[in-house]
Amino acid sequence: MKLKQLGEFGLIDLLKENTIVDPASVVVGIGDDAAVLLPTPRQLQLLTTDMLVEAIHFDLKTTTPWQLGYKAVAVNLSDIAAMGGVPKHIVISLAIPQDLPVEFIVQLYEGMKEICRQFQVNIVGGDTVASPHGVVMNVAVTGEVDPTRLQRRSGAKPGDLVVVTGVLGNSAAGLDFLTRGNWEEFEYAWPLVTSHLTPQPLVKAGQIIAGFATSMDDISDGLASEANEIAKASAVGVRLLADSVPLSAEVQEAGTFFGKPALDYALYGGEDYQLLFTVEPEQYRLLTLAGIDQKLTVIGEVTSECTGVELVQPSGQITALAARGYNHFV
Amino acid sequence: MKLKQLGEFGLIDLLKENTIVDPASVVVGIGDDAAVLLPTPRQLQLLTTDMLVEAIHFDLKTTTPWQLGYKAVAVNLSDIAAMGGVPKHIVISLAIPQDLPVEFIVQLYEGMKEICRQFQVNIVGGDTVASPHGVVMNVAVTGEVDPTRLQRRSGAKPGDLVVVTGVLGNSAAGLDFLTRGNWEEFEYAWPLVTSHLTPQPLVKAGQIIAGFATSMDDISDGLASEANEIAKASAVGVRLLADSVPLSAEVQEAGTFFGKPALDYALYGGEDYQLLFTVEPEQYRLLTLAGIDQKLTVIGEVTSECTGVELVQPSGQITALAARGYNHFV
Repeated sequence: MKLKQLGEFGLIDLLKENTIVDPASVVVGIGDDAAVLLPTPRQLQLLTTDMLVEAIHFDLKTTTPWQLGYKAVAVNLSDIAAMGGVPKHIVISLAIPQDLPVEFIVQLYEGMKEICRQFQVNIVGGDTVASPHGVVMNVAVTGEVDPTRLQRRSGAKPGDLVVVTGVLGNSAAGLDFLTRGNWEEFEYAWPLVTSHLTPQPLVKAGQIIAGFATSMDDISDGLASEANEIAKASAVGVRLLADSVPLSAEVQEAGTFFGKPALDYALYGGEDYQLLFTVEPEQYRLLTLAGIDQKLTVIGEVTSECTGVELVQPSGQITALAARGYNHFV
Repeated sequence: MKLKQLGEFGLIDLLKENTIVDPASVVVGIGDDAAVLLPTPRQLQLLTTDMLVEAIHFDLKTTTPWQLGYKAVAVNLSDIAAMGGVPKHIVISLAIPQDLPVEFIVQLYEGMKEICRQFQVNIVGGDTVASPHGVVMNVAVTGEVDPTRLQRRSGAKPGDLVVVTGVLGNSAAGLDFLTRGNWEEFEYAWPLVTSHLTPQPLVKAGQIIAGFATSMDDISDGLASEANEIAKASAVGVRLLADSVPLSAEVQEAGTFFGKPALDYALYGGEDYQLLFTVEPEQYRLLTLAGIDQKLTVIGEVTSECTGVELVQPSGQITALAARGYNHFV
C-alpha cells in the first residue's frame, strides 16, 4: 500500500501501537496537540535533537529502514548518556516521499520501537509530512538527570585521566565497507558494519561514569573532535597517547584492506557513540570497581602544558590534533 | 559568506547569541550534548514537534527567511497554547543546502529569536546539517501546564457551546494571494498574507480559556478537520452554524476575487492557528468576563444527536462536514 492511500491519520493509527513502554510518566501520548508528561521530582530535564538526511547521513541502498529507525533514536539517546542522564521520551518527525511503500515506514518505526523498548523510552508524538526529495528524519528526546550527577564537557582539570569506553573507529571502517559494497564476503567486516548501522548508546555506562567523572562527551564526530570539545569547554589541554587508543582487531584489518592507518578511523571517523570522559586518578580507580559493563581505556591526560589536543606517538613525536569532524557538513 | 567557509561550529557561535530569554530555567543552553533545564515544580511537561519542508510547506519565493523562522516557531507554540500550556524551550534542526548564504540562516534565526523573545521561550539547542535538496526545518518545543488547567481534545460534552477565537480563513486566502503573485496591489490582501506568513500563537488566550473549557484544539488544518478531531476524541457530535463562522471582510473580498466561497477558506484552509474549544454555557459567560484579549464567537454546539460534524446552512439544510485537511500530505 502507498502512503497516499492510507492518509496521515491512517498512518498515525498504524504506528501508535506499542509506543508507550513506561506508562507511569505519560499522561497523554500520541494523538493530541502535544504530549503531556509527568516529570520526576527534583530531577533536571535534558533536551536534545538530531536530524538525519537521506544522501547525507544515510543511503537506503546500505541501510534497511529498521536499522535507520534504530540509529536515529540511538544517536539521540547517546547525547543523553553523555550528560549522565536517563532518556525518557521522544518525538519523531518524518518527511517522506509519497510513493514510499507504507511498509518502509512501518519498518522504520519497528526499529525505533525496538530501541525504545530496550531503553524504556516512550514515543509520545511526532509529525509526518510529505517530502519532494528523499527521507528526512528528526528525533527530539527528553531525559532526566540528578543534579549531582550532571556531566558537562567543561569540568576537566589538569591531572585528570582521559578515558574512553569500548573500541574506536569501528563505525567509520564499517561505513567504508558499506560504501564499497560486497562487505558480506569479509567476516571481520560484519561487526564493523553493525557498529555503523545500529550503534549502541551507552546509557547505563554513562550513568555510572557520571558518578565519578569531571567531564564527558559521546564520540559522534571522532576522537579528535570530541577531545577538542572537552579541551575547549574546560579551557585545558589534552594529551593523548596514540598507542593507547583502543582499536579492534577488525578495524586494524580494515585499515590494512583499505590502505589507511586504523588510528585515523578512531580519530576522525566518528559515529562510534562511545563515551569519552575525564576523571581524577583516584576516582578512576573507584569507577573500575563500580561494576561498569564496558571496557575502559586510559588514553591520555588533561594538562595545563598545552592548549587544544596533542597526540603523542610511540616515537615521542607530538602532533597537534585538530578538530575535524563535521562529517555531515562537508 | 557561504556556509561552507564558516563551518558548523562557526555557525553555532554566530547563532547562539540572544537565545536565552528566560535564564532562570536554563542550566545549560546551546553547546553541550544536550540542554539542561530546570522544570517548574508541580507542573506537567508538554512536548511537541513540527517539521517544515521547502516546496511542501513553504516557498522561498513567497516568504523571507525571517518570516519562515518566525512561523516555524509559531506553529509549535500554537500546539502548546492548545493544551492550555506555557511554552518554555525549543530545539531547532535545520537541513540546508551548502551554497546557501550565511545571511539566510542568520535571518531565519532572527525570525525565530523575535518570536521567542515575544513569548519568553529559550532556544536551547539544535542540529545543523547539510541538505542535498532544499531547506528542511524541525522545531521541537517543551512547555508546562498546571494539572488543573490541562486541555485535551477529548472533554467535549453534549450541551457545550463550540467557540472559536478571532476570524478564520485569512491564512488560506493569504496563501492564494501569495501563489498568485502581485498581491501587493490589493490592499485587503496584506492582512491575509500576514496571517499566513507570521501567524500569532494564542498562548495567553489559551491559558485563560483553559480555565473554563472542556476541550480545545488549535486550527492548523481547517475548522472542518479540527472540529472532527474534537468530535472523534470526545465521542460526541458537533453541529456548526455556517452563518456563525467568523470571517473577515478581507477573506470575503478574497473569496469574491478568486471565485471561491469564503467559508471554504475557513473550513478547509487551515493554518489560522486560532483556538477552537468547547465550553459549558455558564462557564462561557464567565470566560467572557475574564479579560481575554481575543474576539470569541460561538459557532455551534456539542450534541449527542449526530456523530462527526454537521454544518447547518441558514436555509436549514444540514450537510456532514468531513475532515479534509492533511493539507501538507496530499
